[in-house]
Amino acid sequence: MKRGAILLAHGGGGRLTHELVRDVFLPALDNPYLASLTDAAVLPPLPAGRPALTTDAFVVDPPIFAGGDLGALSVCGTVNDLAVTGARPLWLTWALILEEGLDAALLDACVAGAASAAREAGVQLVAGDTKVVPRGKGDRLYAVTAGLGVVPPGRDLDDRRILPGDRVLASGPIGDHGATVMAHRHGLEGAGLRSDCAPVNSLVEVLLASGVAVRAMHDPTRGGVATTCHEVAARAGVRIVLDETSVPVRPEVLAVCELLGLDPLYVACEGRVLIWIAPGDAGRALAVLHGHPLGQGAADIGVVEETAADRAPVVLTTAVGGRRPLDLLSGAELPRIC
Amino acid sequence: MKRGAILLAHGGGGRLTHELVRDVFLPALDNPYLASLTDAAVLPPLPAGRPALTTDAFVVDPPIFAGGDLGALSVCGTVNDLAVTGARPLWLTWALILEEGLDAALLDACVAGAASAAREAGVQLVAGDTKVVPRGKGDRLYAVTAGLGVVPPGRDLDDRRILPGDRVLASGPIGDHGATVMAHRHGLEGAGLRSDCAPVNSLVEVLLASGVAVRAMHDPTRGGVATTCHEVAARAGVRIVLDETSVPVRPEVLAVCELLGLDPLYVACEGRVLIWIAPGDAGRALAVLHGHPLGQGAADIGVVEETAADRAPVVLTTAVGGRRPLDLLSGAELPRIC
Repeated sequence: MKRGAILLAHGGGGRLTHELVRDVFLPALDNPYLASLTDAAVLPPLPAGRPALTTDAFVVDPPIFAGGDLGALSVCGTVNDLAVTGARPLWLTWALILEEGLDAALLDACVAGAASAAREAGVQLVAGDTKVVPRGKGDRLYAVTAGLGVVPPGRDLDDRRILPGDRVLASGPIGDHGATVMAHRHGLEGAGLRSDCAPVNSLVEVLLASGVAVRAMHDPTRGGVATTCHEVAARAGVRIVLDETSVPVRPEVLAVCELLGLDPLYVACEGRVLIWIAPGDAGRALAVLHGHPLGQGAADIGVVEETAADRAPVVLTTAVGGRRPLDLLSGAELPRIC
Repeated sequence: MKRGAILLAHGGGGRLTHELVRDVFLPALDNPYLASLTDAAVLPPLPAGRPALTTDAFVVDPPIFAGGDLGALSVCGTVNDLAVTGARPLWLTWALILEEGLDAALLDACVAGAASAAREAGVQLVAGDTKVVPRGKGDRLYAVTAGLGVVPPGRDLDDRRILPGDRVLASGPIGDHGATVMAHRHGLEGAGLRSDCAPVNSLVEVLLASGVAVRAMHDPTRGGVATTCHEVAARAGVRIVLDETSVPVRPEVLAVCELLGLDPLYVACEGRVLIWIAPGDAGRALAVLHGHPLGQGAADIGVVEETAADRAPVVLTTAVGGRRPLDLLSGAELPRIC
């Protein structure tokens, strides 16, 4: 759009809103459903299977970081939530809450990021809405995506299918996204840090197409690997034991975590998948993952055990051979990394 | 939830987020899809027809007003966007951006409002997300809904079906929502003002089931009746002539508009529908509308004419018999009414 700043009137529904849609959103997100500009996008019938629906709000600070931006992140987050449920992502919606005075160039960058991520994931942003709030009532821009996908017939990922003995795989090094954002915020950027933000749906499709016995998958975003394992342990009624020496963490991520007093096991990924798999298929699954650009750093990081009332649901076998519980943290440790 | 204030940690994805979901969202929005608490809600196959998808962001100030609240408004807005496209609304997602320090009682009230509106509309909120931003980076709470519905086979509402001679119906008095919110903001509340916020899907179903020849429908939200008519005139390639004496406006709404210098034709409704209909069916359609609780104030407010390059696309025939163009305004007139 023309260089300048976002005005309250850009969210009023009148002439300036129409110009914003025509000049910024439609050219970047080009598709006939969005271009119909009516109250709801009417889509072709879905392929066979069960529809899957999800939503995510994105308030990351800063909105542009090494390896991504708030727009790309919002598309990847929703695509990935669908993919790990076994759904093929199809259509997304995208709502923006802009702060009065927002630099139009920053909006352009995030729209371009969203468009690029959508192309990479093979999805379309078919409906949107934009509101503008007064200065001091927002923080540049917030985005909320919702996504519709379809779980093909016969596919049934569910944490309740996880059994003692199953292996836990990570599709790559962990914590890159959260460490990158926190480093930006503390003036520590550089030194090879880069968000892992990426749509994982093609990786998931390749893995499921290989025929390995995947029980369930999750993307370890907010709260990281440890929090995701807590949620899975509770739903599956099992205990998850991670092996510290097997969990892949880049040295740059480890360095930032040490500086900021963070445990990488609680730091968000935005382009990684945790996979629970039958023990006999773990090796074959790793080989499949290693053959995909997003899975080259995949590793077997742990095992599922029987639960017991007197034992922590998620534990880490440390490098020196001890076991320490990974507690569920309160949530104040890493605000606004997504 | 326990009386208190929202903390940053409620949005961190850890223990406090889990408690918020368990104590506030799940009890109020009770349904098995949301309760699965996984990355995406996996739903039963859709009924036959074309899926429709939409999204809306809600930043209304104040978040509670006579006749509604931000939660109820967010559900009604999305249900209505689906309904006027001819879709039967089925499933909604709901994402919240909370400001640190938000009074928990205000959150409870908006969650209750959303739950109540969803019950009235016959939809379920099946997926959600909550983020918390620091004090001064939000304004109590913002909500973003997305909605999935299905347009039944054979139903085809489209502005391009509108023809010269068609009548324009309004399902009730206009401007109640916007006038109520603006009155609150200027300390003018009272005196019978009340938002029209309501889900219109049952009204739309009754009308379409009656067999009258509806060409298209729209809900005149942001920008009001005049802005909606502009959008329709552009898409349909027609001119729309409204009759000032036929447009129903409550005296309380007119009084607030006169005090604040607003034209009710530009003030948002959140429970009204504009209906474009074949001229011979207008009378029968009005009778159907009058038989529904939400359509008792329905009126025939105008007519569609052929467009011409030198004539304004939307005009008003005034009480004294003149014609004045209703221009598309810039959008700064009524900020944050939805």
